Amino acid sequence: MLPAHGSNPEHLIKQLDMAVPEKLIDFSVNTNPFGPPAELQSVWQSLYKEIADYPDPYAKALKAGISAQEQIDGKQLLIGNGASELIHLIARMFQGRHVLIVDPTFSEYRTTCEAYGCHIASFQLNEDDGWQLNANQLSEALNGKDAVFICHPNNPTGVTYSQETLLKVIEEASNLGVYVVIDEAFYDFCIEEISMSKYVTDYRHLIILRSLTKMYALAGIRLGYIIADEAVINHLKRFQPHWSVNTLAQKLGELCIKQTAFVHQTKNNIGLERCRLFPVLKDLGYRLSPSKVNYYLLREETKKSARPLLRFLIERGIAARHTDNFIGLNGKFLRCAIRTQSDNDQLLKALKEWKSIC
Amino acid sequence: MLPAHGSNPEHLIKQLDMAVPEKLIDFSVNTNPFGPPAELQSVWQSLYKEIADYPDPYAKALKAGISAQEQIDGKQLLIGNGASELIHLIARMFQGRHVLIVDPTFSEYRTTCEAYGCHIASFQLNEDDGWQLNANQLSEALNGKDAVFICHPNNPTGVTYSQETLLKVIEEASNLGVYVVIDEAFYDFCIEEISMSKYVTDYRHLIILRSLTKMYALAGIRLGYIIADEAVINHLKRFQPHWSVNTLAQKLGELCIKQTAFVHQTKNNIGLERCRLFPVLKDLGYRLSPSKVNYYLLREETKKSARPLLRFLIERGIAARHTDNFIGLNGKFLRCAIRTQSDNDQLLKALKEWKSIC
Repeated sequence: MLPAHGSNPEHLIKQLDMAVPEKLIDFSVNTNPFGPPAELQSVWQSLYKEIADYPDPYAKALKAGISAQEQIDGKQLLIGNGASELIHLIARMFQGRHVLIVDPTFSEYRTTCEAYGCHIASFQLNEDDGWQLNANQLSEALNGKDAVFICHPNNPTGVTYSQETLLKVIEEASNLGVYVVIDEAFYDFCIEEISMSKYVTDYRHLIILRSLTKMYALAGIRLGYIIADEAVINHLKRFQPHWSVNTLAQKLGELCIKQTAFVHQTKNNIGLERCRLFPVLKDLGYRLSPSKVNYYLLREETKKSARPLLRFLIERGIAARHTDNFIGLNGKFLRCAIRTQSDNDQLLKALKEWKSIC
Repeated sequence: MLPAHGSNPEHLIKQLDMAVPEKLIDFSVNTNPFGPPAELQSVWQSLYKEIADYPDPYAKALKAGISAQEQIDGKQLLIGNGASELIHLIARMFQGRHVLIVDPTFSEYRTTCEAYGCHIASFQLNEDDGWQLNANQLSEALNGKDAVFICHPNNPTGVTYSQETLLKVIEEASNLGVYVVIDEAFYDFCIEEISMSKYVTDYRHLIILRSLTKMYALAGIRLGYIIADEAVINHLKRFQPHWSVNTLAQKLGELCIKQTAFVHQTKNNIGLERCRLFPVLKDLGYRLSPSKVNYYLLREETKKSARPLLRFLIERGIAARHTDNFIGLNGKFLRCAIRTQSDNDQLLKALKEWKSIC
């Protein structure tokens, strides 16, 4: 069985019983390909003195920054040791209960809900619908559920849904008393404003999950947060370990949330690369998901396993993300990140070569 | 209600409605007063490049280092985001079940077990017994319990128990099928060898908890681990978030576990300071717990509230640890760290002054 996540591609390559190439470009991870904001490096040395003291268990400064930016009360915020800790806290809240997951999606929702003994149902999106969400069908599927997980923009498709669609689902869920968890880990890679965070005050069943490790390339440091009704936050935080969010994550997070120019530039650069790559890939005969962010699904026209292509790319120093553990994808697609121009050119070159020999 | 933990003394001072002194020596925290090993600072700059990539979710390198040092199998190890995360995983394992806590002790065991709906009983140690543990009495109290938490050396007393005593408890617990959690967060401050980790292979109900944030002054970074039977480790790790241990914690941890000279020097320096301070404090009329480590309990001969002394010390730039939330101490003691010679002299001076005006 291949590793369940992107990143750390050496695990994947080892599992495939292949040699790790000397130079490897990681298209399996979908953090910012331009790396962290430059300002982080300039303060790095000064942060050394922070390692000895305990973190602020209330993350007051970071919370104040996010509150101001999101125009919400600090009581509607919970900072976490990465989104994965927050997914655990949410899953624990629904332990033994009925959870719906909009698939294909990030595998942690299912893995974590399974650990907490949830009864899990899948709401399957389809390629033929452009991986779109049908609000009526999803609303129907909410009956008898306690929570629904929606990743938006969705990972691995990169597809976004209209505010109208999501609001309809939230409204129906609210009537039924079903919690709606919207994971916005990649919302800031999208050029349009797509966040549903402004509805948290109106809908006490809405839980917005955010990550700072994707846009700001802080995956090694771990940082995420939840925006939700105060009652939900209070419930979740009872099960969060004291000092869970390390000091560096807090200090770097405080700097990151001020980097509006960096965010703007990142999403524009990635948007331009997306516009450049997609027509070329389509001309080569690949099928792509209509992504609005920094990764997309790619498959060959014939719906065969992508494993040979995965291996072919690794031999050429390119790690893509297999999709064996995405429900409904079953390894027939690869997820590829949109990286820098020169990295993307390497991928294009290899994908051209593959077509020439197939 | 005063903050439930040492460290971050500004919260305490704010709660007491006092002004934060310009210069404040923190005797409420009990991490290494000499700061982290010097080698950490020399590699700090080179660690910047590690923040962008995901941590190794298996912490392989750190695990290999600890395995070799402890002469145990890597499968008997679980690395955590600080001991507090690991306490959560343990408490979750016993959720809704019967837990015994040897008091007075670190408040996180109780707070966390309460969150998970455990039925909690207290086994009370007494000052008149030198805060020692009676193996026969504790063994009797194990009946009907699922787990017992023993902090060793105990926090806040600094007292250690004989191997014979602890073995007797472990043996009896093993017969009864009761898990014994021994928190060895401060074991490496003790000059004698007191760890029970070597018994993990013989007793599958023994769980050893360790912290790297005390000796190596890494509290801001979060790092701890559990040594236990492979079956226990597998059970615990199902509920640990993926990528829970950040990359810096792993990299710094790998360096720290090699710092044997640093550990040796720290425990010797603190041992010498303890020998210097204790007779002087006793001559001044203070009662002390017979600590073997880097903190101790202090009270006045009359068993009155230590709150006036706590305030008096803060006015002199010294933050001690209140004991309001330690069961059986009820605020009548202060816990003080053993710090550097000059810091300890400041404390001595203030404690002398207090005696002169009382």
